[in-house]
Amino acid sequence: MRRCRRGPRAGQLGILCCVVLATCRPSAAGQDALPSWVDGPAKHAIVAFVNRVTRKGSPQFVPPDERIATFDNDGTLWSEQPIYFQLAFALDRVKALAPRHPEWKTGQPFKAVLEGDSTRLAVMGEKALGELVAATHAGMTTEEFSRVVTEWVATSRHPRFHRPYTDLVYQPMLEVLAYLRANGFRTYIVSGGGIEFMRPWTEKVYGIPPEQVVGSSGITRYQLLDPGGRPVLIKEGKVEFVDDGPGKPVAINRFIGRRPILAFGNSDGDQQMLEWTAAGPGARFVGLVHHTDAAREWAYDRQSRVGKLDKALDEAGAKGWVMVDMKKDWKVVYAFEHLPPPK
Amino acid sequence: MRRCRRGPRAGQLGILCCVVLATCRPSAAGQDALPSWVDGPAKHAIVAFVNRVTRKGSPQFVPPDERIATFDNDGTLWSEQPIYFQLAFALDRVKALAPRHPEWKTGQPFKAVLEGDSTRLAVMGEKALGELVAATHAGMTTEEFSRVVTEWVATSRHPRFHRPYTDLVYQPMLEVLAYLRANGFRTYIVSGGGIEFMRPWTEKVYGIPPEQVVGSSGITRYQLLDPGGRPVLIKEGKVEFVDDGPGKPVAINRFIGRRPILAFGNSDGDQQMLEWTAAGPGARFVGLVHHTDAAREWAYDRQSRVGKLDKALDEAGAKGWVMVDMKKDWKVVYAFEHLPPPK
Repeated sequence: MRRCRRGPRAGQLGILCCVVLATCRPSAAGQDALPSWVDGPAKHAIVAFVNRVTRKGSPQFVPPDERIATFDNDGTLWSEQPIYFQLAFALDRVKALAPRHPEWKTGQPFKAVLEGDSTRLAVMGEKALGELVAATHAGMTTEEFSRVVTEWVATSRHPRFHRPYTDLVYQPMLEVLAYLRANGFRTYIVSGGGIEFMRPWTEKVYGIPPEQVVGSSGITRYQLLDPGGRPVLIKEGKVEFVDDGPGKPVAINRFIGRRPILAFGNSDGDQQMLEWTAAGPGARFVGLVHHTDAAREWAYDRQSRVGKLDKALDEAGAKGWVMVDMKKDWKVVYAFEHLPPPK
Repeated sequence: MRRCRRGPRAGQLGILCCVVLATCRPSAAGQDALPSWVDGPAKHAIVAFVNRVTRKGSPQFVPPDERIATFDNDGTLWSEQPIYFQLAFALDRVKALAPRHPEWKTGQPFKAVLEGDSTRLAVMGEKALGELVAATHAGMTTEEFSRVVTEWVATSRHPRFHRPYTDLVYQPMLEVLAYLRANGFRTYIVSGGGIEFMRPWTEKVYGIPPEQVVGSSGITRYQLLDPGGRPVLIKEGKVEFVDDGPGKPVAINRFIGRRPILAFGNSDGDQQMLEWTAAGPGARFVGLVHHTDAAREWAYDRQSRVGKLDKALDEAGAKGWVMVDMKKDWKVVYAFEHLPPPK
């Protein structure tokens, strides 16, 4: 890897060096496409990789069609604390739908949600979560669900930052997405979150269109509203596919049919996607976002209930995957950081 | 719909008319992008639709991102007689693998395959077919399967035409695919055939890349070959999803997340995809390839065992879907038609 030092001291010599060698220009115009990144090893690794696979004549050149980049969503592109945002959506939906379900006042896990009893909810585990998701993500058409998600995204507020959840996207990762696309990559989300929970807003927020969103899914059923009438897809309350852990390479193979050359994750749920990406031939980039910044975001890894990063952290160390230290590598976490707090 | 007559007699006036009005130009240069189509109602409907959704200022203009076109494969893009080509592949694989499976000499349905007893095979039905597919499409990695398919495509020959199966693609439909892409559409296959059976050759044959191939799938399992070793995806012998009939709109929703504005099919297995496409807002194109040409291809519809077209034929008539009469509408069926027979 050839590196060009740039920074306040490098000055015009640095710029010249970049123009001549064209090895560290994040954008064609010589502008920095990753301004929210500290000029350190993580940023250098990203830029060096992109140059290596896109520069004509490079021995590791990759044709544009094969420039596939996959990103986990929760904890990689937006925050995931104190609970996955899709779970926050489900809890809000239980409250919104409660008037239509008087039985929820006495039946668990709904009672705990309505009473705000998060301790009780936490001990009820996976099965209870499954019931909540089934009750809030099913029994309607895909179009109705999309409208419900869009409305929730517009009106709900994160409990710590008092802003829309979609404000809690990482500015440095938005820059990586745009930088990759400007260099001929196609950027995909490969998330444990629900496909239909993400698609209504990923294009607006990340620039990632619906067909490049891969995620978990529930069974949907085709139905004509009346015989011969308007066809709809009904969301049923059964899980079809969980796009997490070993499910991620399986889903990448099924949806994309090509192996990514770049992947970013942040937790053990991404380990297999990162292994799968790393194991392909030619140049590969494998990155892990490490949550190290309790002041601006959160700090957690091996012991976390949400977004646990333990085995993948060991593997990253052993295999030399690129670690992004949120505290050290990111000048800015959220775009709203320097704005006045919301009213 | 404004129409511009073109043809040998229209001459320069026709060309001028097209240049000025730009309403019937199948390609930007004024050349005919659909030369294998007879200048009749089906061709006119295709060209008129494309103009309507792509012409700036058209009340039915559709932005490029939403120009999604879906095509069935068997019987719509390539032939499907006398048996689905993927079944021909499975039968050939049984023969190739037989030396490793002495028990197949006496056990059905393998015995019937090895003895060429198609009558017996036909009466054994779906379950037997499932066993054949499981035995020939599983127990190997996705990469190994891709190599096996590629080799079969290169070496096998169709029993009637004595040519590679991939020669039996419809020249007029190749022109439609290219014409749509030249007009900003993305062209998808949505087939009952297996995703992994199609992807090794669809880009070369149709110009359709792997990520735009939707189809039936088997369960795959992520595995490390040795602890800490190379990761692979193992194809298991269980069906995951059947992309046929009502499964087609379900798969379109899951894989693409947008509703097509154009869809082409040829059988009852496409009926729901066509309904789903037709039911969206704005301009829609719904087409059915009708197999009417026993001399150049095959003639079949309501009574056919393979590619039965019965209910969808009624619906097409009732709803005014565009019928493509292979005999009347296509000047050429296969590109090899006028070549000398293979040795």
